[in-house]
Amino acid sequence: MRKRIDLNSDLGESFGQWQMGDDAAMLKIVSSANIACGFHAGSPTGILATLRAAMQNNVVVGAHVAYPDLVGFGRRNMDLSYSELFADVIYQIGALIGLATTAGTDVRYVKPHGALYNTIAQDKRQAMAVIDAILALDKQLELVVLAGSPLVQWAKDAGLNTVAEAFADRAYHADGRLVSRQQAGAVLHDPQQVAERMVQLVQQGGLMSIEGQFTPIEADSICVHGDSPGAVEMARQLRLALEQQGITVGSFISATIVEEAK
Amino acid sequence: MRKRIDLNSDLGESFGQWQMGDDAAMLKIVSSANIACGFHAGSPTGILATLRAAMQNNVVVGAHVAYPDLVGFGRRNMDLSYSELFADVIYQIGALIGLATTAGTDVRYVKPHGALYNTIAQDKRQAMAVIDAILALDKQLELVVLAGSPLVQWAKDAGLNTVAEAFADRAYHADGRLVSRQQAGAVLHDPQQVAERMVQLVQQGGLMSIEGQFTPIEADSICVHGDSPGAVEMARQLRLALEQQGITVGSFISATIVEEAK
Amino acid sequence: MRKRIDLNSDLGESFGQWQMGDDAAMLKIVSSANIACGFHAGSPTGILATLRAAMQNNVVVGAHVAYPDLVGFGRRNMDLSYSELFADVIYQIGALIGLATTAGTDVRYVKPHGALYNTIAQDKRQAMAVIDAILALDKQLELVVLAGSPLVQWAKDAGLNTVAEAFADRAYHADGRLVSRQQAGAVLHDPQQVAERMVQLVQQGGLMSIEGQFTPIEADSICVHGDSPGAVEMARQLRLALEQQGITVGSFISATIVEEAK
Amino acid sequence: MRKRIDLNSDLGESFGQWQMGDDAAMLKIVSSANIACGFHAGSPTGILATLRAAMQNNVVVGAHVAYPDLVGFGRRNMDLSYSELFADVIYQIGALIGLATTAGTDVRYVKPHGALYNTIAQDKRQAMAVIDAILALDKQLELVVLAGSPLVQWAKDAGLNTVAEAFADRAYHADGRLVSRQQAGAVLHDPQQVAERMVQLVQQGGLMSIEGQFTPIEADSICVHGDSPGAVEMARQLRLALEQQGITVGSFISATIVEEAK
Repeated sequence: MRKRIDLNSDLGESFGQWQMGDDAAMLKIVSSANIACGFHAGSPTGILATLRAAMQNNVVVGAHVAYPDLVGFGRRNMDLSYSELFADVIYQIGALIGLATTAGTDVRYVKPHGALYNTIAQDKRQAMAVIDAILALDKQLELVVLAGSPLVQWAKDAGLNTVAEAFADRAYHADGRLVSRQQAGAVLHDPQQVAERMVQLVQQGGLMSIEGQFTPIEADSICVHGDSPGAVEMARQLRLALEQQGITVGSFISATIVEEAK
Repeated sequence: MRKRIDLNSDLGESFGQWQMGDDAAMLKIVSSANIACGFHAGSPTGILATLRAAMQNNVVVGAHVAYPDLVGFGRRNMDLSYSELFADVIYQIGALIGLATTAGTDVRYVKPHGALYNTIAQDKRQAMAVIDAILALDKQLELVVLAGSPLVQWAKDAGLNTVAEAFADRAYHADGRLVSRQQAGAVLHDPQQVAERMVQLVQQGGLMSIEGQFTPIEADSICVHGDSPGAVEMARQLRLALEQQGITVGSFISATIVEEAK
Repeated sequence: MRKRIDLNSDLGESFGQWQMGDDAAMLKIVSSANIACGFHAGSPTGILATLRAAMQNNVVVGAHVAYPDLVGFGRRNMDLSYSELFADVIYQIGALIGLATTAGTDVRYVKPHGALYNTIAQDKRQAMAVIDAILALDKQLELVVLAGSPLVQWAKDAGLNTVAEAFADRAYHADGRLVSRQQAGAVLHDPQQVAERMVQLVQQGGLMSIEGQFTPIEADSICVHGDSPGAVEMARQLRLALEQQGITVGSFISATIVEEAK
Repeated sequence: MRKRIDLNSDLGESFGQWQMGDDAAMLKIVSSANIACGFHAGSPTGILATLRAAMQNNVVVGAHVAYPDLVGFGRRNMDLSYSELFADVIYQIGALIGLATTAGTDVRYVKPHGALYNTIAQDKRQAMAVIDAILALDKQLELVVLAGSPLVQWAKDAGLNTVAEAFADRAYHADGRLVSRQQAGAVLHDPQQVAERMVQLVQQGGLMSIEGQFTPIEADSICVHGDSPGAVEMARQLRLALEQQGITVGSFISATIVEEAK
């Protein structure tokens, strides 16, 4: 039975004078920080501050790459060509690596954001641009992907290590797909229910689908949100529930053990 | 007597659909390419193309960092704080390193662009932000600076290697300062005159000032432009004149010898 | 038989230091100028210069609104919500009206650019956002649309006047659709052939399809390009050929007669 | 004795997903809303929402124009040329007029933001670009200026109406200048003290300087902040204190009386 899981969250999403999320609080909870790279959010000064805080909290850092759409927060589909997306992804990871170096930490993985995340889970052309970009830059980087999506295989075929993730506050269909946000019950709001489901996910390798059946979900990481006080509290309770069950919260990067004392 | 000099030029300054300069032609002439990093010019796809061409032409690559002012092409003074400029510089160099890695080359130096170049030559607060940023990221990077400016000493005091440059097409005062562009005679347009002055600069360590005296200028690199057909031709003639005098055009990065055969 | 037609072209597409197209030459040829509004191209200083030149050449001005995608030049599909697109379109037209007022001219019509143009020809949600935005701002504005597209009817149903346009250098299918650029023969390169086809379009209300049949095309305007010396020359020959057939080149805005003397 | 004063505040400063300030609360308090135009803050969708709320609350709207510096929130000095600033100001006002028209309201005045506000109070070249831009677009627009600054006279000489403003929470020197934020005591934090000072300003035409003397300040408007819950509360108490003294809070635009009942 699994005794360890990663918690990841989107951080560094402030921009200039605009604040977003409570990075300080979340860095006490998660083991992996997906840090914005400036295309959907994140300005250099703020990114650097979050990287320093991640380093101090011993949280592993990933590049939260996105479409170049600041005003849309990277949530709108954009039809980039392969070569545009390839170069955009490298530019963003490179910028984050530069800032991370300065902060005394490393970029260990890549997690695409928003519309890019959803698109490459299904669209092979854009998926290959992201995969090839990561491999061209650093073959040691891992790619965080939606558990059960076609992207998992495309990345494996290309030789890129993937980390499948589940969403703490989302309902799943019996075939392992996420329930669409348009559908009632797609998003869970009860912290205790969320915590129980995630404990089950870690211990039993699956959870109860919206159709009422146990559904296997292979996930090495759980995504939690930090963009509201309620979200931070939900994440905190989830971590507590996992630890009470003897499950260590730690990065999927094997060499890095996030201290339980944290 | 000196037998070798570097030629550098600003490249990679196209943006999306907008073209600027003739990178392909200039990469046959110069030994160092100052490549835009996206803040004043340069989009990832175009930067990557220029980096690949630089690598193929065995031209050494530097980061042409700038203020975040695309519409103003980085030519307008901006009053950034130390921490803003520090992070902006690292972000840009990091992004370029990422793309350079993918192109099979390295970033070996930094040359600030436009208003930032002029400001840090004289303004210690902004100068220290740039110097500290480079040192925080990679102490091996060198900083290309205006020959004779206070920046030279600030960088040395901080432990950052500098490379002084002269401008091929600019007039100098007897005290070594550039003649202001507002003044008549500040910019030279005759390719033969430019070539003769630069041969003198390399062989005699100085040139004739606008006041008519020989003026010592310590420079390890000469900056040439490539933003018009006339500019490209001037640079080509300069290289030819240098080579005819037995002067090798090669990068100031000692390990890298740009082939004379080029 | 028709004795008059409008020629329109995309202008004002420079951005900061980057030049695009030969606005001065095109303003001697066309009767309508689709002027960039800053989202895909055009910075305020350059837009204003083009507006002043349009006014001096008695060329009618339209707003060339686009997706907010400078690096992609508005050519990449973006999935904006209705309310985002509604506000973006008004913002752009308003900005252009402000500059046009200062230049002593008016904005008389709207022509969406690039990916937005193509999308709203077929996608009702985005089309209605554009239509409603124009009507909310100024019901006198006309909308330039792809001849034969569903957009024509949607605009009419909403009470918005439309102007159908044909493309001078594009091949058409027998059912009136444009031949895809991916297909051989989609783009015509011979200025004389282009001129003859457009004379036929004006005089006979249609042209020869790629399948070899005469195809009716109802168009009140012809779109010509000015982004290369060859394109400018093709436009000039087209205008000459039309005038030699006694066809007046003039805006579709009835009150405005572009002098033949031009 | 004066019986009426305007209260103005900076609104519409959210951007995309990033929220800033409590526009809904402030629109219940102020009589004039300085609305961001997209250059330092404000995206079209959010600007439009604020304009609609301003209209519903019968609050007069002004254009809060700024330098093109989103990441710096328009707070960093930028050395724009006259023609760049001229066109940038018109572009922004035009865009806001377009959105205001759609919202059923008008733009009645211009208040420059941040670094631009401070610069044009003293720098004649940039001041004239702003003044000339406003006059070129609409001579009926008024310009909100720092009471006592040279800008007041430059605008008057050019034929532009000005509205002098005082800052509710700032200390003044005996010569009428603002105390620099770098100096202790420059910013007042006690809502009651602020309210008392502003009542004195309205009733006696001046207030107590930091040096301890009564200092005349001619102001037709008072600027209040809304960027924190404390700031909103201070503004609310100020309005209440003014009304308790029989002072009407209403726009400086004479035709528009903001209902006291609000």
